[in-house]
Amino acid sequence: MTTIDELLTRGVAEVIIERELRERLAAGKPLRLKQGFDPTKPDMHIGHAVGLRKLRMFQELGHQVVLIVGDWTAQIGDPSGRDETRTRLTAAEVRSNAETYMEQFFRVIDRSRTEVRWQSEWFGTFGLEQALDLAGRFTLAQMLAHETFRKRYEAGAGLTILELMYPMLQGYDSVAMQADVEFGGTDQKFNILAGRELMAQLGMTPQQVLLLPLIPGTDGRKMSKTFLNTVDIGMAPNEMFGRMMSMSDAVLPLYFEVLSERPMVEVHEIRQSLATGTVNPRDLKMGLACEVVAQFHSPADGEAAEAAFVRQFVQRELPTDIPEYRLESPTPLLDLMVATQLAPSKAEARRLIDGGGVRIAGERITDYAVVLQPGAGVVVQVGRRKFVRVV
Amino acid sequence: MTTIDELLTRGVAEVIIERELRERLAAGKPLRLKQGFDPTKPDMHIGHAVGLRKLRMFQELGHQVVLIVGDWTAQIGDPSGRDETRTRLTAAEVRSNAETYMEQFFRVIDRSRTEVRWQSEWFGTFGLEQALDLAGRFTLAQMLAHETFRKRYEAGAGLTILELMYPMLQGYDSVAMQADVEFGGTDQKFNILAGRELMAQLGMTPQQVLLLPLIPGTDGRKMSKTFLNTVDIGMAPNEMFGRMMSMSDAVLPLYFEVLSERPMVEVHEIRQSLATGTVNPRDLKMGLACEVVAQFHSPADGEAAEAAFVRQFVQRELPTDIPEYRLESPTPLLDLMVATQLAPSKAEARRLIDGGGVRIAGERITDYAVVLQPGAGVVVQVGRRKFVRVV
Repeated sequence: MTTIDELLTRGVAEVIIERELRERLAAGKPLRLKQGFDPTKPDMHIGHAVGLRKLRMFQELGHQVVLIVGDWTAQIGDPSGRDETRTRLTAAEVRSNAETYMEQFFRVIDRSRTEVRWQSEWFGTFGLEQALDLAGRFTLAQMLAHETFRKRYEAGAGLTILELMYPMLQGYDSVAMQADVEFGGTDQKFNILAGRELMAQLGMTPQQVLLLPLIPGTDGRKMSKTFLNTVDIGMAPNEMFGRMMSMSDAVLPLYFEVLSERPMVEVHEIRQSLATGTVNPRDLKMGLACEVVAQFHSPADGEAAEAAFVRQFVQRELPTDIPEYRLESPTPLLDLMVATQLAPSKAEARRLIDGGGVRIAGERITDYAVVLQPGAGVVVQVGRRKFVRVV
Repeated sequence: MTTIDELLTRGVAEVIIERELRERLAAGKPLRLKQGFDPTKPDMHIGHAVGLRKLRMFQELGHQVVLIVGDWTAQIGDPSGRDETRTRLTAAEVRSNAETYMEQFFRVIDRSRTEVRWQSEWFGTFGLEQALDLAGRFTLAQMLAHETFRKRYEAGAGLTILELMYPMLQGYDSVAMQADVEFGGTDQKFNILAGRELMAQLGMTPQQVLLLPLIPGTDGRKMSKTFLNTVDIGMAPNEMFGRMMSMSDAVLPLYFEVLSERPMVEVHEIRQSLATGTVNPRDLKMGLACEVVAQFHSPADGEAAEAAFVRQFVQRELPTDIPEYRLESPTPLLDLMVATQLAPSKAEARRLIDGGGVRIAGERITDYAVVLQPGAGVVVQVGRRKFVRVV
């Protein structure tokens, strides 16, 4: 029962041009919704899910998704927001990344109302003449209006002419696909507007634009693998649930707005009750975590993950905001304890184990020689207050 | 009997890198001499002839000319020294211009030691991938080091990305043709160096560069059709001779250096005798004009043109520096006389005709209704001192 107003505002950063998009929606004709992706980093997280969910809602209104696999632009690498020229991928890497991406994409999107198109369909037969024609339609001044380009040029960085061509190619996708609406993050605004410009130059009706917000990670900082604050769509149910539970109270209302099915009126109540302290944030987090796992896996997976979480943390009175520590290789317990400051030295670590104060996944440890594996997901506990989750 | 020293200095603006080019010449292997042209303006003048003569001298030493017909770059238009984005030509215009150009080119160059290659051989099958690969090999900073690009960008002019690609394409010609030496005007330096850069990046020995000076027009100003100060290779013998005779004394020594076969020691003597006034400049001009007509037509044409000139001007004591007036369409004599200030008004023009003081090509005029044709080349004379040559 989503209204058009909610469709165009909830979890939406900007609509260009809103009046025109409303008119197109009101006309009742199925629209071609362009969503492109560069198969460079196949791991999608809930930040991407915001856009996928929005696309899905449009699908449910009868519109058609056109998923563009950027097998050509991936080989350039979108320069948006980047400080350096990107390394170019091989065709095999691109194909494999695209498969991983699509496996995740179709956890949210209805495959039966999606056209998957590879850029090589049109760029594979593109000649130099067409490339030069595109390059003649944009001035350097227009391109340097792009903050990324301007900053890199002004910093003396090695911005290549190749990178200046990226927005044109993305724009041409819209021409080739006769897109009605393009979806993308706010960092895509420049590239998507290049598509509008190109369509207008070629006498087509320029596409409408729906820009999605970049949401913060679970800890409120910029979402980034380095910060371990992402919730990846590819995560197994229990890991996904656990990572959702690590979110800070501050991001909770926004996450409800963009990731849950709750009506906006309920989201406002949640924000209110958190502000006045009339609700236990952990209960809200469990509810949202369950809903998110259900979206990317199944409702049963959501409930099972919740039950497992309760067994592991709530009943054993573990905190839910245990810091994570990423192992690169198998690591002896004594080394880990020193590295994570669970013990000041290996000698002290041995003394703690001798005293029976060290547990792994709830089991008391008596053997110094235990080795922890990367990705184990187990909690190492020292005494009642010190915890580290090994990932 | 040209020495290598004279080959690399007489009528040469710059050699890059001179030591290396000397080594290649000394090695005795035939070199591939690249000369490219964009068939945009087929009219060549003696400014271009300086380079052609130099190429011809290399040919006579056994080297091979590779003439690149820039049928692709012509469609972009070399931005070097241009203030505005150029209009793109059609393929048919390019072909027709190329034919005209070559007809003139081979008046100086030995066709049997020339390979004519069209860019479409390599660019016709160029895919987007190759275009992007080229574009990835040059940074914006490198391109904006080109004065033309920087000035146009800074002036806010609509410099397109297409134009930034021009030097790369010209550079790629050298790669495709495995050029040993590229010839070009000093205004071509940036583009030719892009070729060196590209060859080095692709693991080839970078081409050597021979830059030719841009010589002034007959009146000492920049050579330009607008100033009527060019001597075009396509001119008929008499017209060419006449235009050569209009040259100012100041350009005479330079013209002898770059356009004549006279030994440099004689050129120095000419410069000296002009400075000391021990020679009649008109005699020197006649000699050079005769030599130039002989080069582009034949020695007999040179002599015939000289004889015609003497009949028309010297024996009738006409000055040789008669101003030219270009007609756009057939023009009545009375109008012409007013426009060129041979008479202050039409009434006065009629009076002068009545008085027998007006001659066209030496013939006294009695009829007011005479109409002059554009390109007629005739001299209109009023009294003993006023002359205009109608062209």
